[in-house]
Amino acid sequence: MDYKQLAKTYETPLYIYDFNQIKKRYLELKNSFAGRKSLVCYAVKANSNLSLLKLLANLGSGFDCVSFNEVRRAILAGADRYKIIYSGVGKQDSEIKDAINANILMINVESSAELDRIEEIAKSLDKIARISIRVNPNIDPKTHPYISTGLNENKFGVNINEAKKMYIKAKNSQFLNPIGIHFHIGSQLIDIMPVHEAAQIVSNLMRELKALEIDIKFFDIGGGVGIRYKDEKNVDLYEYAQGILSALKGQDETIVCEPGRFIVGESGVLLTKVLYEKVNNDKRFVVVDGAMNDLLRPSLYGAYHEIEALADGLNLSKCDIVGPICESGDFLGKDRDMPELKSGDLLVVKCAGAYGFGMASNYNSRCKAAEVAIEDGKARLIRKREKFEDLVANEIEFIGE
Amino acid sequence: MDYKQLAKTYETPLYIYDFNQIKKRYLELKNSFAGRKSLVCYAVKANSNLSLLKLLANLGSGFDCVSFNEVRRAILAGADRYKIIYSGVGKQDSEIKDAINANILMINVESSAELDRIEEIAKSLDKIARISIRVNPNIDPKTHPYISTGLNENKFGVNINEAKKMYIKAKNSQFLNPIGIHFHIGSQLIDIMPVHEAAQIVSNLMRELKALEIDIKFFDIGGGVGIRYKDEKNVDLYEYAQGILSALKGQDETIVCEPGRFIVGESGVLLTKVLYEKVNNDKRFVVVDGAMNDLLRPSLYGAYHEIEALADGLNLSKCDIVGPICESGDFLGKDRDMPELKSGDLLVVKCAGAYGFGMASNYNSRCKAAEVAIEDGKARLIRKREKFEDLVANEIEFIGE
Ligand SMILES: Cc1ncc(COP(=O)(O)O)c(C=O)c1O
Ligand SMILES: Cc1ncc(COP(=O)(O)O)c(C=O)c1O
Repeated sequence: MDYKQLAKTYETPLYIYDFNQIKKRYLELKNSFAGRKSLVCYAVKANSNLSLLKLLANLGSGFDCVSFNEVRRAILAGADRYKIIYSGVGKQDSEIKDAINANILMINVESSAELDRIEEIAKSLDKIARISIRVNPNIDPKTHPYISTGLNENKFGVNINEAKKMYIKAKNSQFLNPIGIHFHIGSQLIDIMPVHEAAQIVSNLMRELKALEIDIKFFDIGGGVGIRYKDEKNVDLYEYAQGILSALKGQDETIVCEPGRFIVGESGVLLTKVLYEKVNNDKRFVVVDGAMNDLLRPSLYGAYHEIEALADGLNLSKCDIVGPICESGDFLGKDRDMPELKSGDLLVVKCAGAYGFGMASNYNSRCKAAEVAIEDGKARLIRKREKFEDLVANEIEFIGE
Repeated sequence: MDYKQLAKTYETPLYIYDFNQIKKRYLELKNSFAGRKSLVCYAVKANSNLSLLKLLANLGSGFDCVSFNEVRRAILAGADRYKIIYSGVGKQDSEIKDAINANILMINVESSAELDRIEEIAKSLDKIARISIRVNPNIDPKTHPYISTGLNENKFGVNINEAKKMYIKAKNSQFLNPIGIHFHIGSQLIDIMPVHEAAQIVSNLMRELKALEIDIKFFDIGGGVGIRYKDEKNVDLYEYAQGILSALKGQDETIVCEPGRFIVGESGVLLTKVLYEKVNNDKRFVVVDGAMNDLLRPSLYGAYHEIEALADGLNLSKCDIVGPICESGDFLGKDRDMPELKSGDLLVVKCAGAYGFGMASNYNSRCKAAEVAIEDGKARLIRKREKFEDLVANEIEFIGE
């Protein structure tokens, strides 16, 4: 990849995505369930760029959306509506209405109060809402507490008993059609045993439901397959799929999965430029033009991203790589070995394709970065760099008052 | 405040600012330095809404900016250019050039490499850049590590010895005019002793510089005055000012301060609406329509914001107040006593005026909230709610390719 040329053409900070790798990742996962009805629903929240969604839609991917705006994005990108799932703990009435009207595959229900709302809204529209219920199997995903979502003491889903009651209620409703069952126990899972455990628990529930003539057609195992930020071992997709298949022995539902990070994480980088080097007492800092507003993960989770210097300097020494934002928490990497760097040298922040641009803000009135796709060796812009005018567009008319 | 009416008119989540209180806070601080030349430079990063900046500009406030886009905001809002300071560890060349051309009061320099760049750029423009240097007095601000910036092991400023060398260099340059000296040791300081200690250290340095005929005119004590999120004691402004004045005994520089949080923090709230209540096993969750993309401080710093329910329900019980975003880290408050709540009830998240909207993102394709000002009992919109079209405006043209 000619990063220097990209920096020259598009400036920095810049998000760069390898569309060929995204394609490959999608197909790897899709193929691991070969011989079985399956639907890969890419988790839009990981990276919602329209061109990236279009790439996946063209491959036949479905989409897992957590707001109706994400559904809108998927539809704009050419997604098949019957491959769109709408999840999330806090759906607005208007979003539920829009989702029913949009005739998507199903709405994933996260509480019994929500089930009631969906029923009411479907009734008012005189339509039948296809639903699945997110079950919380109470599994310890052995991962970061901020991204572990399969435990009882979090806000997601409902427990097994409550789920059962909700399914019975849905079955008996004229306006609800329970066609799916869903769990998602956490993100960045390297050890996939907990997913298999969860699949077993949820599949047992599904068998009970079938005995009650509740006809589940989609078994949604969520996302969460981890990637290699540093030295994590690669998840073996064959093993991942086998564990699911064995939990579903004798059943014939379509397997749905909702990968986000696995598809786009390693396929994206954040390219940033060195502004200054400085040494405060004995501590070395490399100040770059990318910041926590561009990539929040290091500040928010203490997440590690490998950083490669495109510079031929020698004399490696430890430094913190920090952004221009006026916060001590604004860093991209700490205690990294870097060669001597000079203003204008480029740094590549790896594995930034997932939960990177999507969490970007305008803190310190910084414009959001541009996004570029690389496909078959060619680069193209897929999102323009923000301008000052964009920042004030929704404010400026009120300043006269 | 008729929050119900505001929610009806402007919808939720909604930022609401009390402009009268902002005015009062500004004047309180300004008056605490009465009888002395002083300049209050509001720290734009705390809340950069144009109408809010205009309110302060009309009162005669200066502005502390950390990007040239913040300078642009201040100028748009009607700020006097000679009251604008431009700080920040990572200034771009283009920003330095724009700042020199804009003829603002001074550029705050954060490293010797940056001083060299400013000199070069001033030379190329054939102008003289007025500067101050941010000195790191190595004081422990006894505050959260993420917002403590007066220690040597962080990226901000330069140590005393380096500062001295830089001042001498600047004095000898045709293109630099060192007119200020600056420190800022941290944010949300409740114990202000460290500021006084820092003022003493920096004032000693200034006396040495004066002996070298380096004519410092502005003594900038930074921001950082803390506010009452929970049970913090109020900072006594008289005491705050006296400590600074005594460090400056016999000197006649203009005192500059850069308050952000103190001016706007307690003057703003985030109004949010209950979507659902849910109980997972024994844990109670209140799901609201505001989320970490609206107010990041609880997720990012574990920050506490008082939350008041506008509901007459009884039976207080503990709950987590969480947003609709698909992350366990998406919460506004944990373990709060709340009455029974129903869908549509309003919650007021207090002290959200500073570092609230400014850190907002579009995570999960959520639109940024609207902002409303209350002044003399009247409400007016000062920023429109974002729309889906805004989210994709910089992407949509590329989707055809
Ligand atoms: C319900 C659900 N599905 C899918 C995902 C995607 O997770 P990942 O990006 O780890 O695959 C998430 C992430 O938080 C989620 O909450
Ligand atoms: C240099 C500088 N000045 C002023 C401020 C404003 O601080 P506060 O909002 O705590 O007053 C900050 C905040 O980080 C800062 O870094």
